[in-house]
Amino acid sequence: MSEKNIMSYETVALDDAASALVIINQTKLPDEVEFLHLTEQKDIWKAIYLLQVRGAPAIGIAAAFGVYLAAKRIVASDYEAFYEQFKAARDYLDSSRPTAVNLSWALNRMEQVVLANRNQTVPELKELLHKECVAIKEEDVWMCRQIGEYGLSLIKDGCGILTHCNAGQLATSKYGTALAPIHLGRERGMNFKVFTDETRPLLQGARLSAFELFADGVDTTVICDNMASQVMKNGWVQAVFVGCDRVAANGDACNKIGTSGVAILAKYYGIPFYVCGPTSTIDMSIARGEDITIEQRPAEEVTEMWYKKRMAPAGVNVYNPAFDFADHELITGIITEYGIARPPYTESLKEVFRKKQEAQKK
Amino acid sequence: MSEKNIMSYETVALDDAASALVIINQTKLPDEVEFLHLTEQKDIWKAIYLLQVRGAPAIGIAAAFGVYLAAKRIVASDYEAFYEQFKAARDYLDSSRPTAVNLSWALNRMEQVVLANRNQTVPELKELLHKECVAIKEEDVWMCRQIGEYGLSLIKDGCGILTHCNAGQLATSKYGTALAPIHLGRERGMNFKVFTDETRPLLQGARLSAFELFADGVDTTVICDNMASQVMKNGWVQAVFVGCDRVAANGDACNKIGTSGVAILAKYYGIPFYVCGPTSTIDMSIARGEDITIEQRPAEEVTEMWYKKRMAPAGVNVYNPAFDFADHELITGIITEYGIARPPYTESLKEVFRKKQEAQKK
Repeated sequence: MSEKNIMSYETVALDDAASALVIINQTKLPDEVEFLHLTEQKDIWKAIYLLQVRGAPAIGIAAAFGVYLAAKRIVASDYEAFYEQFKAARDYLDSSRPTAVNLSWALNRMEQVVLANRNQTVPELKELLHKECVAIKEEDVWMCRQIGEYGLSLIKDGCGILTHCNAGQLATSKYGTALAPIHLGRERGMNFKVFTDETRPLLQGARLSAFELFADGVDTTVICDNMASQVMKNGWVQAVFVGCDRVAANGDACNKIGTSGVAILAKYYGIPFYVCGPTSTIDMSIARGEDITIEQRPAEEVTEMWYKKRMAPAGVNVYNPAFDFADHELITGIITEYGIARPPYTESLKEVFRKKQEAQKK
Repeated sequence: MSEKNIMSYETVALDDAASALVIINQTKLPDEVEFLHLTEQKDIWKAIYLLQVRGAPAIGIAAAFGVYLAAKRIVASDYEAFYEQFKAARDYLDSSRPTAVNLSWALNRMEQVVLANRNQTVPELKELLHKECVAIKEEDVWMCRQIGEYGLSLIKDGCGILTHCNAGQLATSKYGTALAPIHLGRERGMNFKVFTDETRPLLQGARLSAFELFADGVDTTVICDNMASQVMKNGWVQAVFVGCDRVAANGDACNKIGTSGVAILAKYYGIPFYVCGPTSTIDMSIARGEDITIEQRPAEEVTEMWYKKRMAPAGVNVYNPAFDFADHELITGIITEYGIARPPYTESLKEVFRKKQEAQKK
């Protein structure tokens, strides 16, 4: 794989005949680059369930493609018969990861196409569904590229960047969010010195971010999470880019566990700290980070999962939160597809949504 | 092991007949508690070389016991013959870990006993050597207990403590340094809620600190290094105790990689940060932390060592420093066997050495 450029592939795609879902099997990374060509619904369901495809945007796109492939095979003489079979396929895929917001969102969007076109023939419905799933992916590519453009405006060629977890191409259709400025810069012949926190316990930084950056020819260095302070002290980092799972109205940004620590270190060393995410992750109904419930995950992820033998005594307590949040006071800017919000976020995030509404009116 | 109290054992000891070195095989922790009874010089050499016994003070004591066991077996009719055989055993053990300062220090101290007692008979020399190795251990126990006493004066029963790496009983004769206040408090019926950073890449926190604390009945919670910020934010930590490998004259404290990050987080959350170590680790000839050369270790420790399969792409860069230092401005106090130094350290560390000199005059 080291000879091939992952950026020339896609995380999630339809094959040329639009008859198979093609994904990179992320459970085998970084050991092996395996592309799965999935045509059967049960295999697509399993791919989402087993995290062979992961990252909220990528899951949504995979599900949209998946339900289109199901629709394409439907044999029905009238709308009712078509919808019944479509709905069954839609609900089946939706059950693969019940808590993934993007999964339902994408499947609902596909369903709306069917519901809004009762008067169309079955072949026409299939064609409309094809257009919609392609549009879902294209919008994601556009969104990521926009974030990349805004992010790129903040950094200079050759500078040092630190990232945490994986908010990259492997989690989206292309470019990613936090890694979008780096990949986009790479397309333009720029290169950055990127430090990826390994991101315990699941190692998305070491396994996934390092993989896609390294494969894109980026000067990539893996560090343990506890080495970020020394890397910053060495003067090697000019900006931090991280993704986000949810942003509160005050700018508090919830992301993979360890993000708050990185933000505090960046503040201490005087390094700008940027949060990257589409407006869909900004939740104006949540006032502040403390109001976001943090998922607690199994102890075994910390004590056993990746290891040949136990790494902590059997029975010891383990605290294993999946996320924390960077306080808005620690965040230099929040980069969205509609521009960069700056403090005070209570005002600037509203402005981002105003820009979005204007753009959508056009 | 969960049923037994490790504190009732000792990291390094002589057996009742003073004819075997008894150590806990630390390479098998936390999977298995195996005590090694070593009588042959080659096995003692191997135990140090293979890190079956580790931690600077513990290595020194093991070597002192080891060279005593060699001396005990010497058959010699005069001093010259005795010293020749003793010197061979001393040099052999000294070759087990060439860079370990405490190893040479303890062996030199044993050798001085022989050199200073040329007029004694061989049985008397053996008896003096026995006394000296026992004294080396007893002084270490005293030093650790003193640090424990001073540390204990800073915390209240039941409070939350965070530690990094292993500066515990497993690295010393008893109590440890950073963990001394906790073990000593435990002896007195106190209990603390201790959070141990797992301490990547070698996991001394998860494997060793968690093991000895858990075995001592301490309420112990293992966290990944990147979770310390969230634990502090939750209000669960009232003090941080860490060990140190070297302290500069200005108070900059070099310790396991990640220590500087923990110190910055503690400062941010307003939590006192204490460095614990004997005066032997304070190097007044070094002006500041920047003057300490940081050991760089192999990439494989980060990318492969503990894992069933690769955790980062083959060939990717890895930065793997073994240590960093906490800037003196981040340190609330430096706890030694002769009291607690407070800022400004350029003055208070000198005062610690004045107290030490006074004590040694008595």
